[in-house]
Amino acid sequence: MSKVRQGNFFEDFSVGMHIQHPTPRTLTEGDRSLYIGLTGSRDAIGSAETVSAALGFEKRPMEDFLVFNIAFGKTVPDISLNAIANLGYADVRFVRPVYAQDTLRVSSDVIGLRETSNGKAGIVYTQSVATNQRNEEVLTWVRWVMIHKRNKDEVSGVNVIPPLPQEVAVQHFPALQVNAAAEVMFEATRSRFFWEDYSAGERIDHMSAMTINDSDHSQATRLYQNTAKAHFDAYTMAASGMQQRLVYGGHVISLCKALSYDGLENAICVLAMNGGNHVSPTFSGDTLVCATQIKEQIELGHPHMGALRLRLIAAKNIGAASKIIFTEKHQGKIEYPPEVVLDLDYVIAIPKKPNNKV
Amino acid sequence: MSKVRQGNFFEDFSVGMHIQHPTPRTLTEGDRSLYIGLTGSRDAIGSAETVSAALGFEKRPMEDFLVFNIAFGKTVPDISLNAIANLGYADVRFVRPVYAQDTLRVSSDVIGLRETSNGKAGIVYTQSVATNQRNEEVLTWVRWVMIHKRNKDEVSGVNVIPPLPQEVAVQHFPALQVNAAAEVMFEATRSRFFWEDYSAGERIDHMSAMTINDSDHSQATRLYQNTAKAHFDAYTMAASGMQQRLVYGGHVISLCKALSYDGLENAICVLAMNGGNHVSPTFSGDTLVCATQIKEQIELGHPHMGALRLRLIAAKNIGAASKIIFTEKHQGKIEYPPEVVLDLDYVIAIPKKPNNKV
Amino acid sequence: MSKVRQGNFFEDFSVGMHIQHPTPRTLTEGDRSLYIGLTGSRDAIGSAETVSAALGFEKRPMEDFLVFNIAFGKTVPDISLNAIANLGYADVRFVRPVYAQDTLRVSSDVIGLRETSNGKAGIVYTQSVATNQRNEEVLTWVRWVMIHKRNKDEVSGVNVIPPLPQEVAVQHFPALQVNAAAEVMFEATRSRFFWEDYSAGERIDHMSAMTINDSDHSQATRLYQNTAKAHFDAYTMAASGMQQRLVYGGHVISLCKALSYDGLENAICVLAMNGGNHVSPTFSGDTLVCATQIKEQIELGHPHMGALRLRLIAAKNIGAASKIIFTEKHQGKIEYPPEVVLDLDYVIAIPKKPNNKV
Repeated sequence: MSKVRQGNFFEDFSVGMHIQHPTPRTLTEGDRSLYIGLTGSRDAIGSAETVSAALGFEKRPMEDFLVFNIAFGKTVPDISLNAIANLGYADVRFVRPVYAQDTLRVSSDVIGLRETSNGKAGIVYTQSVATNQRNEEVLTWVRWVMIHKRNKDEVSGVNVIPPLPQEVAVQHFPALQVNAAAEVMFEATRSRFFWEDYSAGERIDHMSAMTINDSDHSQATRLYQNTAKAHFDAYTMAASGMQQRLVYGGHVISLCKALSYDGLENAICVLAMNGGNHVSPTFSGDTLVCATQIKEQIELGHPHMGALRLRLIAAKNIGAASKIIFTEKHQGKIEYPPEVVLDLDYVIAIPKKPNNKV
Repeated sequence: MSKVRQGNFFEDFSVGMHIQHPTPRTLTEGDRSLYIGLTGSRDAIGSAETVSAALGFEKRPMEDFLVFNIAFGKTVPDISLNAIANLGYADVRFVRPVYAQDTLRVSSDVIGLRETSNGKAGIVYTQSVATNQRNEEVLTWVRWVMIHKRNKDEVSGVNVIPPLPQEVAVQHFPALQVNAAAEVMFEATRSRFFWEDYSAGERIDHMSAMTINDSDHSQATRLYQNTAKAHFDAYTMAASGMQQRLVYGGHVISLCKALSYDGLENAICVLAMNGGNHVSPTFSGDTLVCATQIKEQIELGHPHMGALRLRLIAAKNIGAASKIIFTEKHQGKIEYPPEVVLDLDYVIAIPKKPNNKV
Repeated sequence: MSKVRQGNFFEDFSVGMHIQHPTPRTLTEGDRSLYIGLTGSRDAIGSAETVSAALGFEKRPMEDFLVFNIAFGKTVPDISLNAIANLGYADVRFVRPVYAQDTLRVSSDVIGLRETSNGKAGIVYTQSVATNQRNEEVLTWVRWVMIHKRNKDEVSGVNVIPPLPQEVAVQHFPALQVNAAAEVMFEATRSRFFWEDYSAGERIDHMSAMTINDSDHSQATRLYQNTAKAHFDAYTMAASGMQQRLVYGGHVISLCKALSYDGLENAICVLAMNGGNHVSPTFSGDTLVCATQIKEQIELGHPHMGALRLRLIAAKNIGAASKIIFTEKHQGKIEYPPEVVLDLDYVIAIPKKPNNKV
């Protein structure tokens, strides 16, 4: 019997199956430094203990997408080592802050299975949970992945599609105890734009661009202990349709979150991700720009904070975020221009104006 | 009103203007590790807690140019996002050590403004201060930058040139409480060269060379949260005169400081930087070498330590530090050979010989 | 007298000579994060404090080859700056775990010297010791290096070859106090393969591959404060027989140790390294795969742990570990296929099956 786990194929999954993923991971300030070095994150709370302390956080929270990418990476050996494509995320809830020295464990339940229309491959839906060393949930998410079959000629007819929420409901957002948010955030970011200043439909073109190098993305992906071969094995990928290593999609999300600081400086944290689509592959040498559309101002019933639902689109090698086109769903499908690499639907917390008490 | 701050143009500055820069930053041991990984620093105090403790430091100080580069990076969004060129530094004072978990905030005052000779652009002089979480100054510096005008055809005639000290006066050096420095440093570095062993005019050719890769310099610059586009946006830079991304000058300084360990092993810390000139751009793939000239032995009136004023010249792609030419000022101007990229005038503390008491 | 130490040549060494290497180094969680980012290590104990605590470790041990590479790097300026080739390692003992905040010092004794057959160069044998801040040994090793002579025409006839053990004896393995190892490790790794499940002669083809980029290997080598020029100076190396920078062999070992997680998930730590041969150079762009052969099951007389002696072979640019050929010694010499870069003989601790008490 082979000692090496080759990952699961479509036939290995069954609805209701529970998978405890190896290996737990303790996050540290070293991970944060490397995350800043790899993404350029200027997140106010992640950058300074004085800011997180003034807001009332116990300690300085880890950057949200650092947590997401490390938790996600844990699921790869069991779920997506034999993936053809990551099709989507839904119902991603940032339940609780993660601090340095917290240790994360991740498990998943298989909640859906169906074969592709031609039956040659399958789609696996999983619900994953990351918990800390006190067994408290810190992050939960659903994703679905197209996975190779061992035997693509054997059709099982399995067809269990789980309900996928279009959005995370407000009651599932984390209950943050946050003090005098506007004053604290303004002191840190010098931005005077708060919750009330953003309106649905408004568009923000983030001014900076970021070119990705091979060592950047592969180092980030190793930091996340994500083992998907497409990101690391240039020799094999040279013979693939891609002809080269593929940048891990989670690194693209992290880079875009960092670029989106300009115009959203007062974002306190990510509350939820409603969905995400890696529209096209990103390669080393590509230069990313991104723009954000405000989809909705969400009242949290909190004296100091509101939420904004955002749509972020990232594109490559076009020179400026102002050239990004926001295409809408048409007959259930979105047609993207070829330069678009990411379409992300997520929710941030942001202070209300200082003089606006609920 | 655009949510995105596009940085200031020349017309946006006025003499006496005070700018509090976003966002504060907590430095950690993770930043130090990455700094070592990116520069190869072997600084004795930065490398080992046993050394800093034996010298009498409260904790292990952060590397001086890590602090400088992080503090400098904070000023970029407000001061130099629309810079044409960083023209120089003066009066850089390393006031107080920075330790892991210290949080830095940076502010600047505009102390001078003048238009270029053709009036199409302007030069802004700023005095910046980095403070820690106890509001103690840790680093202060002056720099001047050539900045685009919004309207290059409108000439204002502003012409306020601040006094720029040629050197930091001894009384502005930090007052370091340092024990038996020579014994401690020798134990760490095994070098027997101390303050008295260096004489003005002496030249040291640092033996190592360092090739810079794209991921090295862009990762360093992101670590410093420096957002200047020229370092990150290969797509736009391909269409510029440079044709490629430019290596951040502060990373060049850090690399050369690390290379200069060989021959200056017993350097305790940087006390001041009198000036610095990024003579030519550095690009990915360039290989740097550097040499140091001792300009002056400075008596600090300290029983265990003296200071050395150094001139460091770095050059690219010439094979050996011995080929570096130290050109002098002629009619107020220094002509540099094309391979020179950096001319740095700075001051280090170094132990006096063990038996030499003041 | 030159301030710059140019490293020792063959004539500078004498048998019995003791060298205290500069500079001590404090290891931190930042070093670990960067090590994970550079290697992708998923080592269960290095990844999670919950795991090391459950096993009974005082704190979370640093990854074994991170310690090895940092300790090794310390010896380079004195021993191998003028090396022609690193010929081998022997008797490498991982004496004691290293934890974050431990400070390592390294010294070496010259234990052997001989000239090459043509007398133009020499081979230096050294015994090195790394100690922590309590002066406890943490790592000891022997290596031998071919070194340039100052004067290659002067033959001294020196010929002192030290005894080199073929393997580290069991009594020199560290005495680890480890609790209920199988249960703890299974909980972390989800692998059911323990000491009894591996048998001599068995082969494991590790499924992942890793492409090395310039910034990866040079960053790793700088993290180790290893100053050997061949890894950093692309300008000079372009004119060498290699035509490019050489990847530091210790980084290759670290990468292969990380790749070998798959199939050896329950490895607790490295106990010893009997030998290692950097068969061929590795360059940026090369893609490594590796395979392990179980050489021996070693009974440690420990209730919860046994040891496995392993032979790891790494090869480049062949697509799959299954293509690796394990050639054996023939007339005292091993002939390797051209793709092989590393042949490593080392010993790991691994839990015994839960129900197997000594």
